[in-house]
Amino acid sequence: MRTEDVFPISPDEVGEWSAETDVAVIGGGCAGASAALEATRAGAATMLLEGTGGLGGASAMSGGEIYLGGGTPIQTACGYDDSPEEMIKFLAAALGPGADEERITAYCEGSLEHFHWLADQGVPFKAGLWEQPAWVPPTDDGLMWMGENTYPYYEIATPAPRGHRPRSTGHGGWLLMDQLGARVTESDVRLVTGTRAERLVMDRDRRVVGVVARRLGEVFTVRARQGVIVCAGGFVFNDAMLAEHSPLLLGHRKVGTEGDDGRGILMAQAAGAQVRRMSAAQAGLTVPIQLLARSVLVNRHGQRFINEDTYGGLVGLAALFGDHTPVYLVLDEASYEEVPENERLGRTPAWVTETVAELEKEIGLPDGALQSTIDLYNRHAKLGHDPQFHKRAALVRPLRPPFGAINVCMNEVVPGADGGSVANTGFGVFTTGGLATTTSGEVLDLAGEPVAGLYAAGRTAAGIQAGGYISGTSLGDGTFFGRRAGRAAAAHLNGVPA
Amino acid sequence: MRTEDVFPISPDEVGEWSAETDVAVIGGGCAGASAALEATRAGAATMLLEGTGGLGGASAMSGGEIYLGGGTPIQTACGYDDSPEEMIKFLAAALGPGADEERITAYCEGSLEHFHWLADQGVPFKAGLWEQPAWVPPTDDGLMWMGENTYPYYEIATPAPRGHRPRSTGHGGWLLMDQLGARVTESDVRLVTGTRAERLVMDRDRRVVGVVARRLGEVFTVRARQGVIVCAGGFVFNDAMLAEHSPLLLGHRKVGTEGDDGRGILMAQAAGAQVRRMSAAQAGLTVPIQLLARSVLVNRHGQRFINEDTYGGLVGLAALFGDHTPVYLVLDEASYEEVPENERLGRTPAWVTETVAELEKEIGLPDGALQSTIDLYNRHAKLGHDPQFHKRAALVRPLRPPFGAINVCMNEVVPGADGGSVANTGFGVFTTGGLATTTSGEVLDLAGEPVAGLYAAGRTAAGIQAGGYISGTSLGDGTFFGRRAGRAAAAHLNGVPA
Repeated sequence: MRTEDVFPISPDEVGEWSAETDVAVIGGGCAGASAALEATRAGAATMLLEGTGGLGGASAMSGGEIYLGGGTPIQTACGYDDSPEEMIKFLAAALGPGADEERITAYCEGSLEHFHWLADQGVPFKAGLWEQPAWVPPTDDGLMWMGENTYPYYEIATPAPRGHRPRSTGHGGWLLMDQLGARVTESDVRLVTGTRAERLVMDRDRRVVGVVARRLGEVFTVRARQGVIVCAGGFVFNDAMLAEHSPLLLGHRKVGTEGDDGRGILMAQAAGAQVRRMSAAQAGLTVPIQLLARSVLVNRHGQRFINEDTYGGLVGLAALFGDHTPVYLVLDEASYEEVPENERLGRTPAWVTETVAELEKEIGLPDGALQSTIDLYNRHAKLGHDPQFHKRAALVRPLRPPFGAINVCMNEVVPGADGGSVANTGFGVFTTGGLATTTSGEVLDLAGEPVAGLYAAGRTAAGIQAGGYISGTSLGDGTFFGRRAGRAAAAHLNGVPA
Repeated sequence: MRTEDVFPISPDEVGEWSAETDVAVIGGGCAGASAALEATRAGAATMLLEGTGGLGGASAMSGGEIYLGGGTPIQTACGYDDSPEEMIKFLAAALGPGADEERITAYCEGSLEHFHWLADQGVPFKAGLWEQPAWVPPTDDGLMWMGENTYPYYEIATPAPRGHRPRSTGHGGWLLMDQLGARVTESDVRLVTGTRAERLVMDRDRRVVGVVARRLGEVFTVRARQGVIVCAGGFVFNDAMLAEHSPLLLGHRKVGTEGDDGRGILMAQAAGAQVRRMSAAQAGLTVPIQLLARSVLVNRHGQRFINEDTYGGLVGLAALFGDHTPVYLVLDEASYEEVPENERLGRTPAWVTETVAELEKEIGLPDGALQSTIDLYNRHAKLGHDPQFHKRAALVRPLRPPFGAINVCMNEVVPGADGGSVANTGFGVFTTGGLATTTSGEVLDLAGEPVAGLYAAGRTAAGIQAGGYISGTSLGDGTFFGRRAGRAAAAHLNGVPA
């Protein structure tokens, strides 16, 4: 049996199966865990294949934000009304252009139920709102803003905070996976670790009936009587695929695990699956959010290009995909000092001057460009507004000498607040494109029909994101559509209703 | 036999073939014609399947520019030295980021030979240079600039004009196809028109051995003993594929023919082929180039974003993919009058004012933004330079009242210079991503290996373009790699050296 490539093999080539199950789930991140839980609870014998030693994946390393709304108990307790309609309007705008509205609609309409499901799995959410712009709040508050209250989104949808967070101080992805993992362990799911799926088994009717994996160097084949769900991550660790589909991501810090090598996408494509939006990505700039919001952010031409108080994830995407790099935070001393040292991510101005003209020259920006930008900004800031980019009034204030600037696109290691060092790593990137799926998690083939017996969720599938990215939408759509894929697989026999 | 989908069928399912040949070429544009000519001259029985009534395709509708260099006789006669090395440097920069350097290198190293081949087919080139920026020159000069002499490219590579043009006043794509078509007709190629390929025939060893087409409503199957070459155009006429891969192109004017429906790409993907850079495109703004070069081009924030004298194709791409739209040409009366009426594409200023402040207000740009931009531009223009965007000195001159502005992103029908009407259609778009191929035209599968017996060229294949676009590179890489695919197919028997 050849395993050196990604194309499916036939059941005849398998011979005797190493194991049998109803539903085989590939990958033990948030999508795979959710899929396995729902499949087993629907009565299907379920096996979860994980390449590493345990559950977690990139989900466990993440900040833990889960984008939820429509009036969750946490939103209500914090004093916010919300509805699926307002959530749809926000996500369609913030994740576009090109966002998948059918998928977003399903996601938002099911969001309240999904919150309760997560809570039922033991994921704890504290009723408290972190009000400040942040990547990850320093508290265990269960709610944060994700740009809903910034321009232009407050004009598009009634603002409500929807960034839900497991009750953890700082990063909380570990806690989400801790709880989902505990539920998997308690369940009837058969967890098979150290087992890396490599290709699918497809019969002559083009139905997916199993998986070929590698376990301790040996071939391990699993017959799946009902279906295979691929939740094997994205492709940011596959440079050849990045060069093919999203070359701007090359050379930046990869966010994820080495499992994000695109294999899950390729093995499904080799079975006839279509892909969508393979250039889509998150490109988060490692920028201190509080400094950013108080700064004038300029591109290499010395121009502003986005409201500095918008959601941080959108700033990096605009900078990288809008061809603005390198970009600089221009600050005055008062704004810099206003931000607590532990919120600065170790960033200090590389240039400090008494005039904008000197600053412009030291950075190497075109003659007059930064002066022109700051003049215009200050002129309006004196009146307390920003008609060009619409930064919220509370953060608009004329910059006064001395001035400083930070190149936030640089990779550098700098002293941290705690006496140690902090890596400032420019852009942190991952992919959000992947397999085309229905809102039930069925993988679509190149003719637009479901591949019988094949499902996908998480970053193996094209997400609800397209041109934009909002944190919480990856754990959000991974768990949400992972559950749906689990239920759909459990209800079918390799494509035929069970 | 099912023909409603795109997946390959087996030879058993075909039964009796309608026709047999050595090499089957799908599509009669410039790539398919070039492929067929080279295959037949290499001794292979060659059949060319074309969906419409005759050869031509999108190539015949095009301007006719062919990007060639390395010291062609036309370049030499016009007084320019050139080398493959300088050509590589320019294209790698102008077609990036993410351009395929291996493919560009092959293209540039073979360019001089390719010029002679085109001339040998009867494509006439006149030794004359059109010096002005233009989409399509009004003369029959054989050479034009494609941005090689604009910033930043003159710093990256020694400038030489490389836009070669068949000897036609205005558009010349018809003349290229007239000559290639005549050579096909004279040759041993069996041309089968009105015959639309729908899917491939693949044997159990995953070798492509034929084509299933539809001819006058009937199924028409062609056995190809040596290989199939897909030259069936891009996918700009397939809105579902645009939504999947390049949603920013939706809603704009499509450049190509209805044959650019992505079918060629899909039928190869269904046979295991991989795709590359499916979001890549040309997005040409229907803007009078001479007005553009004399204007200050600003985005919806009232800011400049590119040197107005760069190659026109790069302006539209930057505007659309850089999120700058709508964009406006800001001009003074003197500059407007300087451009002959027949070069204005019927564009007249929608707004005319005595001050920039009034103009800004009438357009609806943010308060002070356009004033700030024009102040900075004028301050430098008085000194004859443009340090922010590097428009060439000869075109830099302070704008003086009265001022006017044109929204060039608008679709509108306006009176033309000849008394008729001219459609100003905002962005004209087409796709440049597609199948992954080797520099010999072999289609690569998802594991990176050639699909035995399958070749592609033209816009069905991912081109030498990625983030950028230079006119002439489509006819250029279509004919160049089409020839290579024809020779490669003629030298093999469904993947095995003949």
